[in-house]
Amino acid sequence: MKIRIVNARILTMEEGSEVFQGEIQISGSRITYVGAPVETQEVFDRVIDAKQNLVLPGFKNAHTHSAMTFLRSSADDLPLLEWLNEQVFPFEAKLTADDIYWLSKLAILEYATSGITAVMEMYMEPEAIAQSFEEMGMRIVQVGAANNFSQSTELVEHWLNTLNNQSELTSFRIGFHAEYTCSEDFIERIADIAARHKEPVFTHISEGQPEVDECIGRYGMTPVAFLVKKGIFQYGGAGYHLVHTTPGDIELLKENGIAVVTNSGSNMKLASGTAPIEDYLKAGIPVAIGTDGPASNNCLDIFREMFLTTGMAKLRAGSAAALPAREVLKMVTCSAARIMTIPDADVLAPGKLADLVMIDLNQPNMQPINKIDCNLVYSGSKQNVLMTMVHGKVLYDQFDGRQHFHFPQEPEEIYETCQKIRDRILG
Amino acid sequence: MKIRIVNARILTMEEGSEVFQGEIQISGSRITYVGAPVETQEVFDRVIDAKQNLVLPGFKNAHTHSAMTFLRSSADDLPLLEWLNEQVFPFEAKLTADDIYWLSKLAILEYATSGITAVMEMYMEPEAIAQSFEEMGMRIVQVGAANNFSQSTELVEHWLNTLNNQSELTSFRIGFHAEYTCSEDFIERIADIAARHKEPVFTHISEGQPEVDECIGRYGMTPVAFLVKKGIFQYGGAGYHLVHTTPGDIELLKENGIAVVTNSGSNMKLASGTAPIEDYLKAGIPVAIGTDGPASNNCLDIFREMFLTTGMAKLRAGSAAALPAREVLKMVTCSAARIMTIPDADVLAPGKLADLVMIDLNQPNMQPINKIDCNLVYSGSKQNVLMTMVHGKVLYDQFDGRQHFHFPQEPEEIYETCQKIRDRILG
Repeated sequence: MKIRIVNARILTMEEGSEVFQGEIQISGSRITYVGAPVETQEVFDRVIDAKQNLVLPGFKNAHTHSAMTFLRSSADDLPLLEWLNEQVFPFEAKLTADDIYWLSKLAILEYATSGITAVMEMYMEPEAIAQSFEEMGMRIVQVGAANNFSQSTELVEHWLNTLNNQSELTSFRIGFHAEYTCSEDFIERIADIAARHKEPVFTHISEGQPEVDECIGRYGMTPVAFLVKKGIFQYGGAGYHLVHTTPGDIELLKENGIAVVTNSGSNMKLASGTAPIEDYLKAGIPVAIGTDGPASNNCLDIFREMFLTTGMAKLRAGSAAALPAREVLKMVTCSAARIMTIPDADVLAPGKLADLVMIDLNQPNMQPINKIDCNLVYSGSKQNVLMTMVHGKVLYDQFDGRQHFHFPQEPEEIYETCQKIRDRILG
Repeated sequence: MKIRIVNARILTMEEGSEVFQGEIQISGSRITYVGAPVETQEVFDRVIDAKQNLVLPGFKNAHTHSAMTFLRSSADDLPLLEWLNEQVFPFEAKLTADDIYWLSKLAILEYATSGITAVMEMYMEPEAIAQSFEEMGMRIVQVGAANNFSQSTELVEHWLNTLNNQSELTSFRIGFHAEYTCSEDFIERIADIAARHKEPVFTHISEGQPEVDECIGRYGMTPVAFLVKKGIFQYGGAGYHLVHTTPGDIELLKENGIAVVTNSGSNMKLASGTAPIEDYLKAGIPVAIGTDGPASNNCLDIFREMFLTTGMAKLRAGSAAALPAREVLKMVTCSAARIMTIPDADVLAPGKLADLVMIDLNQPNMQPINKIDCNLVYSGSKQNVLMTMVHGKVLYDQFDGRQHFHFPQEPEEIYETCQKIRDRILG
């Protein structure tokens, strides 16, 4: 399939790039041309007129638990531990692999409406999840969710060996849930797998202050220091959340090539705190943004996350100049792709993956046209997503003003199935 | 015009109300029936099948400067004073009444897409603004923006006498910009007008800490205390922002019937701080939410404001249980209507104004159906707005999946005109 997108405003997100007028050509899953309009005799299967709307790399959601859609809005406004122990864990225990397959599809519908073209996922039943994403055509990088209670280190190594050769859309990296849900011995075994496979590792770190205090009580050091000491990050990786870190932690993150995935909406709604994003960036640490799961957020909307990430940084710094719009855009495009180990999805350029979005500028919230990147971050919304393309395939569009979902099932079938799952489990 | 909305989930927002299945009947600008489905021989001009979607009172935006649309995304990420003095005031000085008329129309398009059915406005050229809203069919309560540099107290009194008898959609209340832009004598004259007309007064108060410190330096007391002492709030009113207040201020607000209009997005983006919303509610002070103007926010999206208001309260309290969803919904519906002096737009009930919205529950972000009010606040977005009705008239709908704007001009004409205004003023 060869596709040509003409008459577009384009933001490639390459270093120093500015919006320009041009066209994009795609062959199969890859971009073959990005630049000024060209005269060509080449035949394309489809020509899309962007009508002066904006095309940029697809948004990446660098941390999520997709199948938690069934718990969305079921138990909000509760203290964190009561929520986890009474409203999350008991219900998660009832999930089957088939439930997770369907609940992931519901999340994928929402990713597509939000212009998200790839996610980094941590949940149970990774084979069912890989199948769900593969069928839907959405890109996913899964990481192990191993901990003392589920997913052994052997399983993580098994999936590392098997889940990376199934599809161009799905991959698997080493991961474990968190320091506080894994024994020291368990963590040492994860480090051993990472060392043998020369692989990065991904895990929740320092989401709440109590977690940090408990780790210091257990091991005499912060979670970051403890995990580094255990050799978890010999080949880099990333920490999810990293809200409560010390200057020493920040040095360790930098020295060990550990990236940060921030989860602003979740950190806000669960009152976890505000991560020191500007300190990370100043130290040269790459930062991406994740929605976290829909039970904690409750939506999977990258536009809201972008605004929250800069807004929380501005409040923290006491300065409207903190964390400018372009930095936020990098976090959800090129930086995220590299952190998520899908570097070919980082920018729009020949040879790169055709994972891209088109943004409707002919909406009240985008008018008049001043600075387009500021508009995206400060006033963009899901309603502006005209097209979501993954691996050269249009998964979602609103070209004629209506929502069109291009998936194996209609949204209504997915809604119905997920409602039944929800009703069975929550009653 | 008689309209019947059948097959709806309804949330009236009356005290203690829960979502139920039923229908709503409207005659002219008023609701005539809300309740269980009925058998009737009555003839309606239009029957709208809600298809099990949610109908609730329209959202109220209790503080905005609509015509600042021309500055949206023109100068973000700047320190506050540099932004105001170099990027706002010089350009505002070039606005004509006709510019403001058109720029307000652009904002109204956005209000409609966000389910906003009424706004409380503070800006220049209130006659042009009233005409703009009247033509568009959007409800507006204007307040004076009087200060040392523009809008005399005489003009405020003139508009109070003339702008309240023009239309059922538009009204005018006494207002002035802020303590820090008005002399003591000026403020005394405003208090005198309020006393003579027995009217509430609306103004910006304590948005930033420097403003509070300067007032203490000038008068030996906080802005709240100073304005109360000057008799500004003899007949109540409201303060916009009220971010930096003392326990003494909170007592004064309560004692003097002064309501709070919080502006979460603006306070975040301009790094003004986090208002003590829970303290206000605990003291029994009514609270509403405003977007503030599109130059500071940058969008006019009540869904984002709802999430930010509870999110910032949760972060401030360090508790996920702070400011539950239902409290937030009250702020943008019934509480806002009363604070904005349009009490007949507060809830869905016979005799009340037919200002209402329909929310699409058949979208990925609303599925599965758990608790609908939590879904609205925590995962709702503009894309869920199926219909915005003001004064019994449908201004905006997406009934067939496409956006339909029912205004005298097409959106494209408004976009083009506003772009020309922006280009003339900003170059």
